[in-house]
Amino acid sequence: MSGNSRARRPEAAPFTERTPRVVAARHLTRRQGRDRADRFLAEGAQAVREALAWPGHVHELFVTSAAAERNADLINAAIDAGVRISEVSEKAAAGLSETVTPQGLVAVCDTVPQPLAVALGGAPRLVAVLLGVTDPGNAGTVVRVADAAGADAVIFAGDTVDPHNGKCVRASTGSLFHLPIARSRDADEVFAACRAAGLRLVAADGYAEHDLDAASLNGDLEQPTAWVFGSEAHGLPDAVVSSLDTSMRVPIYGGAESLNLATAAAVCLYASARSQRSVR
Amino acid sequence: MSGNSRARRPEAAPFTERTPRVVAARHLTRRQGRDRADRFLAEGAQAVREALAWPGHVHELFVTSAAAERNADLINAAIDAGVRISEVSEKAAAGLSETVTPQGLVAVCDTVPQPLAVALGGAPRLVAVLLGVTDPGNAGTVVRVADAAGADAVIFAGDTVDPHNGKCVRASTGSLFHLPIARSRDADEVFAACRAAGLRLVAADGYAEHDLDAASLNGDLEQPTAWVFGSEAHGLPDAVVSSLDTSMRVPIYGGAESLNLATAAAVCLYASARSQRSVR
Repeated sequence: MSGNSRARRPEAAPFTERTPRVVAARHLTRRQGRDRADRFLAEGAQAVREALAWPGHVHELFVTSAAAERNADLINAAIDAGVRISEVSEKAAAGLSETVTPQGLVAVCDTVPQPLAVALGGAPRLVAVLLGVTDPGNAGTVVRVADAAGADAVIFAGDTVDPHNGKCVRASTGSLFHLPIARSRDADEVFAACRAAGLRLVAADGYAEHDLDAASLNGDLEQPTAWVFGSEAHGLPDAVVSSLDTSMRVPIYGGAESLNLATAAAVCLYASARSQRSVR
Repeated sequence: MSGNSRARRPEAAPFTERTPRVVAARHLTRRQGRDRADRFLAEGAQAVREALAWPGHVHELFVTSAAAERNADLINAAIDAGVRISEVSEKAAAGLSETVTPQGLVAVCDTVPQPLAVALGGAPRLVAVLLGVTDPGNAGTVVRVADAAGADAVIFAGDTVDPHNGKCVRASTGSLFHLPIARSRDADEVFAACRAAGLRLVAADGYAEHDLDAASLNGDLEQPTAWVFGSEAHGLPDAVVSSLDTSMRVPIYGGAESLNLATAAAVCLYASARSQRSVR
């Protein structure tokens, strides 16, 4: 594909916020628009770089002239990948941004979720399930942590935030593109799929009887595990906790009431990763 | 002290943003004002509750009538503690707030740091040192994590953000009041004090040769440790890393480039806590 001549458009005026393709892309800043188009916006150099590493799934790159100068390597990578590149005005870029300081660089990508059975294919050993997590920054940070800990998938279950929310994409710092993501409004379907994949379902619950450190020392974290994390404010519903295979709490040794979601997930997922890898 | 009659001031008009005591308190929303007065503002029900548990260090409580209704228990606790309570207008409360949605409840407190020698007194086993951490939310989250992991102190070193910054106070969710906090612009003084307290200085460094999980399995985390964490963007300077006793990285098993500061600190501090507690 000869993207080059088409891409640079040096003489053409930049697209404005009223250009139909920009208007169409702006719909992707809202969940309804993303769900309808099965596409979303990845903003900023890091997210765009990771998206471009996902061949065939980036449809268009909107860039301001200032951002194009700052990110010549990315523009060239997009050209090499045959991605349509469109120069946009600063105002058009701001309309495609969910951040206070727009980055001037936004890629239109296919949405990332895969069917549950695909995401959980291949004998997973470590999976993170988010159930009712409403803060997109927290959800994105958990995706980043799960990726770092070598998890095989992250599942957005129940009323959890859309993984393509701009804040979630940003907080994941590219990890959204690194490991399989699935989602389902039906938590029971998610739990059944995890069990079918041979995973033990462990509720992360501040009130659990079992303590993560004791479990770690007892060898109780070595088997394939799906950690289930609840909302920042309310944790997991009791009915969910009691329906899972077991529950564990991160021990609190000091005066803090709790950990926040991302730090608790980091401690849990790394505890499993360490235990599982120590016995391989 | 008969705070009650004095406190409620039911007939007096609420303080406005021009009332001298409110004007004086508003100076505490800036670092210079806090440094000058050795006082800071703790905003919101959780922070105020924790502050009141710190006898003699709360000087005044500003509260809107709406917040007083919502927090009758806290108002009574403040009365019992002999704290001066002043009703303020919504606008005055907004001027004392660093949040987008002011809570209407702000306590004027003594600043929390103690001298290094005091914070590190009593044979500490686990300490977190923040060096050049500029994001107040991250710093506050590390204080919360350190408290949860049972750390003995947190030290704000070098150009690290002021622990009394409103976002730091809020992110610590009260933990700022739970464990000794010290600060010093002179990082070498901090390192010397840690060594004098018998602590091994460990740099958390993404490029370190030693891996935290290996160290954990080898028993290399059992001794008293001061973890040194650098800035979100740049980590620790090489010269600092090489001047400490050792450095360790959180292993990255997947495709993520790194962890963010708070999640990395959670994994490191809990790894030490678990190792230290397993041998007691």
